[in-house]
Amino acid sequence: MVLANVPLTIIIALIAGVISIIVAIIFSLIVFREDPGNERMVEVSKYIEDGAKKFLFVQYRILSIFVLILFLIILLFLPSELTGGKVPILIRPFNGDALNWRQAIAYLIGSIASMFAGYLGMMVGVKANTRASFGCTKSLDKGFDVAFFGGAVMGLAVVGFALIGISGIFWIFKTPNVVLGFSFGASTIALFMKCGGGIYTKTADVGADLVGKAEYHLPEDDVRNPATIADNVGDNVGDIAGMGSDLFDSYVASILAAMILGYVLMAGATDAVRGTFVIYPIVISAVGLIASLIGILLIKWLKTKDPGKLLNTGTYIATALFAALGALFVWVLIKTTPGLTAAEIKQLWYDYICVVVGLLSGILIGWTSDWFTRDDKKPTRDIAHAAQEGDAVVILSGFSYGMLSVVPPAIGIAIAMAISYYLDKVYGIAMAAVGMLAIVGTIVSNDAYGPIVDNARAIAEQGGLGEEVIRTADKLDSAGNTAKAITKGFAIGAANLAVFALLFSFVEDAGIPLEIDLLNINVLIGAFLGVVVPVLFSSLLILSVQRNAAKMVDEIRDQFESNPKILEGTEPPNFKRTIEIATKGALRELVLPSIISIAMPLLIGILFGVAALGAFLAGAILSGFVFAIFMSNAGGAWDNAKKWIEDGNLGGKGTNVHKAAITGDTVGDPFKDTAGPSINTLLVVMVLTATIFLGLLILINNGAGLLAFIAG
Amino acid sequence: MVLANVPLTIIIALIAGVISIIVAIIFSLIVFREDPGNERMVEVSKYIEDGAKKFLFVQYRILSIFVLILFLIILLFLPSELTGGKVPILIRPFNGDALNWRQAIAYLIGSIASMFAGYLGMMVGVKANTRASFGCTKSLDKGFDVAFFGGAVMGLAVVGFALIGISGIFWIFKTPNVVLGFSFGASTIALFMKCGGGIYTKTADVGADLVGKAEYHLPEDDVRNPATIADNVGDNVGDIAGMGSDLFDSYVASILAAMILGYVLMAGATDAVRGTFVIYPIVISAVGLIASLIGILLIKWLKTKDPGKLLNTGTYIATALFAALGALFVWVLIKTTPGLTAAEIKQLWYDYICVVVGLLSGILIGWTSDWFTRDDKKPTRDIAHAAQEGDAVVILSGFSYGMLSVVPPAIGIAIAMAISYYLDKVYGIAMAAVGMLAIVGTIVSNDAYGPIVDNARAIAEQGGLGEEVIRTADKLDSAGNTAKAITKGFAIGAANLAVFALLFSFVEDAGIPLEIDLLNINVLIGAFLGVVVPVLFSSLLILSVQRNAAKMVDEIRDQFESNPKILEGTEPPNFKRTIEIATKGALRELVLPSIISIAMPLLIGILFGVAALGAFLAGAILSGFVFAIFMSNAGGAWDNAKKWIEDGNLGGKGTNVHKAAITGDTVGDPFKDTAGPSINTLLVVMVLTATIFLGLLILINNGAGLLAFIAG
Repeated sequence: MVLANVPLTIIIALIAGVISIIVAIIFSLIVFREDPGNERMVEVSKYIEDGAKKFLFVQYRILSIFVLILFLIILLFLPSELTGGKVPILIRPFNGDALNWRQAIAYLIGSIASMFAGYLGMMVGVKANTRASFGCTKSLDKGFDVAFFGGAVMGLAVVGFALIGISGIFWIFKTPNVVLGFSFGASTIALFMKCGGGIYTKTADVGADLVGKAEYHLPEDDVRNPATIADNVGDNVGDIAGMGSDLFDSYVASILAAMILGYVLMAGATDAVRGTFVIYPIVISAVGLIASLIGILLIKWLKTKDPGKLLNTGTYIATALFAALGALFVWVLIKTTPGLTAAEIKQLWYDYICVVVGLLSGILIGWTSDWFTRDDKKPTRDIAHAAQEGDAVVILSGFSYGMLSVVPPAIGIAIAMAISYYLDKVYGIAMAAVGMLAIVGTIVSNDAYGPIVDNARAIAEQGGLGEEVIRTADKLDSAGNTAKAITKGFAIGAANLAVFALLFSFVEDAGIPLEIDLLNINVLIGAFLGVVVPVLFSSLLILSVQRNAAKMVDEIRDQFESNPKILEGTEPPNFKRTIEIATKGALRELVLPSIISIAMPLLIGILFGVAALGAFLAGAILSGFVFAIFMSNAGGAWDNAKKWIEDGNLGGKGTNVHKAAITGDTVGDPFKDTAGPSINTLLVVMVLTATIFLGLLILINNGAGLLAFIAG
Repeated sequence: MVLANVPLTIIIALIAGVISIIVAIIFSLIVFREDPGNERMVEVSKYIEDGAKKFLFVQYRILSIFVLILFLIILLFLPSELTGGKVPILIRPFNGDALNWRQAIAYLIGSIASMFAGYLGMMVGVKANTRASFGCTKSLDKGFDVAFFGGAVMGLAVVGFALIGISGIFWIFKTPNVVLGFSFGASTIALFMKCGGGIYTKTADVGADLVGKAEYHLPEDDVRNPATIADNVGDNVGDIAGMGSDLFDSYVASILAAMILGYVLMAGATDAVRGTFVIYPIVISAVGLIASLIGILLIKWLKTKDPGKLLNTGTYIATALFAALGALFVWVLIKTTPGLTAAEIKQLWYDYICVVVGLLSGILIGWTSDWFTRDDKKPTRDIAHAAQEGDAVVILSGFSYGMLSVVPPAIGIAIAMAISYYLDKVYGIAMAAVGMLAIVGTIVSNDAYGPIVDNARAIAEQGGLGEEVIRTADKLDSAGNTAKAITKGFAIGAANLAVFALLFSFVEDAGIPLEIDLLNINVLIGAFLGVVVPVLFSSLLILSVQRNAAKMVDEIRDQFESNPKILEGTEPPNFKRTIEIATKGALRELVLPSIISIAMPLLIGILFGVAALGAFLAGAILSGFVFAIFMSNAGGAWDNAKKWIEDGNLGGKGTNVHKAAITGDTVGDPFKDTAGPSINTLLVVMVLTATIFLGLLILINNGAGLLAFIAG
């Protein structure tokens, strides 16, 4: 396929990606230039950095083996033609048309890009924390700037690497299905990062809370608590690196889905027109990147007393800019595509509306998450008041509101899907997902800001910077939480729409007539088992956190008991041992969930066939959505209810009400930071696994699976 | 349709039903004959009886209005022909063939039968409790007998009324679709009973625990606790009447689904053959009733030291008898049906295998629930040990294991569906559901035994019968829990298969070619919203419990504070006020969930069409299954972990470990007794609503719905 107009727009996307990386580097340098503070702070920061590096290195070492194995599987076992699967399995001549080796290479690149983006963001994060902390000694603005720039590095790196990767690979290999390899690479890495990071961060957090805070009544981030450094490391590996690779993966997946659909559905059009529909999502994403970049730079100029509002203002600016610039670029795209019919021009504009619909519904979903988790709204207030009735009621309350919070985003996504489908069928839905994720640069930046200021606060405490500075850092921290509420809902909604789009691209990619009819028994069984997978996955993750946290708890108790000097504060605790426990545990525990996410779709596809696999994926997406939103919002609401009480309400700290609220928060921790957000990645990995191995599955009973006979 | 061989087999079923009712009456008389114990016991028992009656009367008064409205809607608004819908809407001549008036009458009968069965079972329950309690002063056996007979009344009444209703209506009206009205009546009543009873029982329970036990350290069932009577009333209205009407509803629904499918799918056969397939499920159910009856009578003779084992032995005896007798009756059915082809005979035998497969998988599912909730197995032990780490960890642990426990039954049901479908398509699945529910008489008996002995224990405490008797009653109580673990899993699994069968009958009943293809956007949106409904429903129920429990807590505190004599034990608390709060609250709070369960399927059907409605139902069934099993097992495991600790393990009562375990149990209470089990009924009501209003929905855009244009 020759795409007449690829070069121009792809080059724009490439340039946007490169600029994004350059700005990220500049931001890093700005952060590095800042004063890291006093000796103690540097020491603590060094501990965190070393811990984070250690985890990432060990994890990457394991990942390399995994990536290599999958690389070989893709290379050796996939049919060389995606559809039809003429040449069955095993080594065959490498010819220029063969998909397998190109996909395998793209897979490698995707993996490496994802790892690199995660590494970069995290390294800047661990540098930025102490500097933001020290910045707070000067002014709120100063502290904010450092943290914000630090976070922005992750945001820009994610988007930059994604755009460069996608447009570069597409430019070279010309086929969206090669980009599929890139996306698969990004998502398998994201799965490990998210699960591993999620388990790590909550192992440390729960451990630190249960012994240090609850049993020994140490304040948050107290330097005598042996798990406190591991906790800070966890923020970096879980919330920065993990979250970054997660959104990297959703972002790439959404673009990919639209590219594949454009390619398959516009097969009847001229090459130029077809090419336009294939690169359309890349163009939109490039516009989103530019809008995010401008939004980020503008925040530098807009000073305010309320940093939380500032972050959200940045999001709104990016949104508005994106909508406006988007229209301009669509116009350019139309003008530069030769031979578009009037109907096709109308279709492109309709798709632009889909983009806007996606974006708006993303923001709406963010708002509802915000409403359910804000301490000045009914749900969180109710949860806080429930704490007056004791631990059980606070749990029930958070649990119920968490479930209730699933309803509005479900309706939001249903409406967005209905409108986009009406406008341009499944391609419209895919473009809505692209629109929702277009300003992901801003989202990731705001999200990564959170753990940086969280760490900054801890370092201020541990570096002995005094009450005043800690209060300033606290203010920055709560801004992070405000921003996070919106971005988190946004991220889940966007990922959900993206996997739906991917599901449609899976179906179109099958190249065989496919009906996912629930009245077919194999399809129904597929859906049934699909619904169960996110439940199984979440329970395994939470059990992992628990198992590790128990080890952590034993270790902390052991340290306190064997060396009383730790509690006196005259000797530092053994941070290395706690970090070691968190690291080893996280890596051991992520194996089973990861295997499930790759093995299950293959198993279903092999046994019950491609249509059943489609239903399996749909079932998993639906129940995954429910559990992701529920856990994420319940966790957020418990967290904020606790914080609201800590602000002196209902008796404040140290009361029984506060104790009950802490129970809620502790339950919510693995919900919102381990299981909930990992589900997105699980879904993307499952859909991509299905898509990439589709060629293989179609060889079995013509795609009907080994157990085709059941359905008769 | 003239069914040549109806009379004989239908008469057998009718006779079985009548015998069942007669035995139930005899059992009631045996129970009534027993000594109700001392004056104090009679007084307490009278309080409970009055409270239960009051709730049921108020509820039935409200229900009558509701039933009347639905009666009129069915009568006036349904098309007179089910398929095709030739005569659109509103009053038209009552002719003999018209379905609407016959369905409306059947609806009335179903409602009344369900109410009556609930009333009867509950009245015997409240009589049996004090008598079982007094029986314990004589011997364990005596106490067991009374409680067991009391429970058996409910079991036999449920099955008896159901069989009489179904076979009677079918005999008179000849069409399975009239039986649909009966089933709809049973299920709408069940929904109210289950939701209302569930909210009632947990309002009282949580209230009693939070203030009485946690704040004032009163022992369980202490007579000074103002909510203790309401708690006992709750056991009767929630666990006996509610549970009974729930299983009544699943039982009828499973038979109905197979009848409709037999009727529609065998349309090509001779009338005699078609009739055989229609009455086949009735015959199987009659056999199940006979087997249950013999099992129940045998238990009288089999004495053992371990009443828990005895109850389960009864279940196994009934199962074995049923399988053996079933084969005999199938043989008779085949012999008495003229003109069966060899293929049809083979089909009937295959269906018999489906029945056995259903039954076995029901028991397997019961076993896995048992494994996840028994205090000598890993999950519950782990949860108990987690209590050592505090409240939060016990919650996380129960939560994770609850989710994990969804996996085995899901696989079990998937396998059962696969095998039965392979053997005889959707009719095979429907027969598997019939098989699973065939021994429902035993199941309900064992289940109703639980609240009776629970009450008996309370009355022993309140009647001052001494430690020895309380220990005997405790032994009976723990037997109830052992039996309940199996029956509960069984009930959920069976209901799930039954709604799947109903879903298929819905599709076949539509009479238009139907594809529930998830690639159709309206269908996908239907599935999406369907998945969300059980989540919304559960959250509303738990929030209701919480709201009411808060009022109850205020009331109890108020009573303790305004009258110190209550705590001294010199003056009784005001039981009437607590009962009033539980009653009013439960009735007010069940309105919204009930409306949702009827309005949502209609809304989806009207907007998105019949296929989308099918997907909506499928989505709801799948996610409903997940949440029902999860909540039920998590709740059961928490409960048993607490009890295990109370038995003196890990420090026993009064320790912090015990306190944490109580938190788990309190969270689990509304999970396992309010939300979890109500989901089944929700699903049945939704599928039946869809089926009964199908004729209307098909009139809208030929069944494609008002928003058909979205899918193009």
